Amino acid sequence: MVKEPKITLVGAGPGDVDLMSIKGAKALAKADVVLYDALVNEEILSLAPETAVKIFVGKRAGKHSMKQEEINQLLVDCALNYGYVVRLKGGDSFVFGRGYEEIDFAASYNIETDVIPGISSSIAVPALCGIPITHRGVSESFWVITGTTTSGKISDDIYVAAKTQATVVVLMGVNKIAEIVKIYQKEGFGRLPIAIIQNGSMPNERYALGVINTIEEQIAEKGIAAPAVIVIGAVVGLHPKFQPILESYEFVDAE
Amino acid sequence: MVKEPKITLVGAGPGDVDLMSIKGAKALAKADVVLYDALVNEEILSLAPETAVKIFVGKRAGKHSMKQEEINQLLVDCALNYGYVVRLKGGDSFVFGRGYEEIDFAASYNIETDVIPGISSSIAVPALCGIPITHRGVSESFWVITGTTTSGKISDDIYVAAKTQATVVVLMGVNKIAEIVKIYQKEGFGRLPIAIIQNGSMPNERYALGVINTIEEQIAEKGIAAPAVIVIGAVVGLHPKFQPILESYEFVDAE
Repeated sequence: MVKEPKITLVGAGPGDVDLMSIKGAKALAKADVVLYDALVNEEILSLAPETAVKIFVGKRAGKHSMKQEEINQLLVDCALNYGYVVRLKGGDSFVFGRGYEEIDFAASYNIETDVIPGISSSIAVPALCGIPITHRGVSESFWVITGTTTSGKISDDIYVAAKTQATVVVLMGVNKIAEIVKIYQKEGFGRLPIAIIQNGSMPNERYALGVINTIEEQIAEKGIAAPAVIVIGAVVGLHPKFQPILESYEFVDAE
Repeated sequence: MVKEPKITLVGAGPGDVDLMSIKGAKALAKADVVLYDALVNEEILSLAPETAVKIFVGKRAGKHSMKQEEINQLLVDCALNYGYVVRLKGGDSFVFGRGYEEIDFAASYNIETDVIPGISSSIAVPALCGIPITHRGVSESFWVITGTTTSGKISDDIYVAAKTQATVVVLMGVNKIAEIVKIYQKEGFGRLPIAIIQNGSMPNERYALGVINTIEEQIAEKGIAAPAVIVIGAVVGLHPKFQPILESYEFVDAE
């Protein structure tokens, strides 16, 4: 007898398996099927039963990746054929994760769905790297923006964000860094602190730290690539290694 | 012999005990002392050893609450006298949680510190209520703002945010709702969807749903009070109960 079909969206967090929620781990332990993305640490799959079907639906370099419509249909098919499906996404499913599209599609088949939030990389990756996204007297807000919209372009919201006092976090934006730098320079913020953190929360975490005017050099030097989180704003200056960087600039300026 | 002093900031998540991270639960299990805020669900304390010292340092109606400087000192004193201190905060410690101030103070005593991020209410509370803070074609960013700055006022960032396409989330802002409504009305956004969610993720969750022009009525009718999360933007219109609300407005308009 086929079990009652159900789909749970689970946010897997930024990468470290232990940053999964207890609730997410409990859902995985009951899963008949797990569908997971490229941003999910595969070690997390060990929380699911050995007998559970595990299906990779993410993008991998050089390989055809599944279209969103195909993922939606596969989710529904798995629920109807196997029962309980856990849909694992990196970070949180509703932070540019297209989670709502999947829920909406499943609902059109009258399949029960629910959501278990995850720790979003937008907040956690800077935190684990030593950057608080808000701090009294420095930042009263943070604005999280996608670097890759439906059209593949960076969101226009970044043009507005660059004019504000908010800490700005850009996800999926590493390939747009030259564009981001130009936007901030145009606003006169060439000296604003910025950090780019790759593989945040993982043992292979790497980051580049600097100001808008110099960050491209730093990224090239450190070889930072996607997936990475970009953080821009005065709070980045609180990073323990930022003070010496600032002093070196002042030294250069004074020459 | 006193153990090596250490302080870990742990984000407890929005309320549901199971929304704590596995890593946070492991830290709690080793704690000699736990310092916790009013926004922390006290059931979470059961994850700490029975023998651990548990100290409430939050605000409660009608009672004197500890100043930040007193909390900083208490954290350090506990670490020096007992060893391993877990500092539990609601949501995430760096999202208006003053976490960095505590880390910074402990560092001045050369006490080792680290951070375990939490699931932020800003993202999770709307999600669990049926509102994705981003959705393709509807919102490409979200902006999280404090309703209560150092001076007690709402952050000025809200005036800028009300002009943008970002989903706006205001934390600690329920008492400022009249002000928020006026700011959005001034921008001509009286029909923009808005939700206010109290006790998100908990069995006693309650919410008010409407548009800017009517939300104050809804809040009064439902008796919504702090702590609550305010979400403003087109994504709120995706809430399953929003469509009938919208239709009833159109009916009224047509009369």
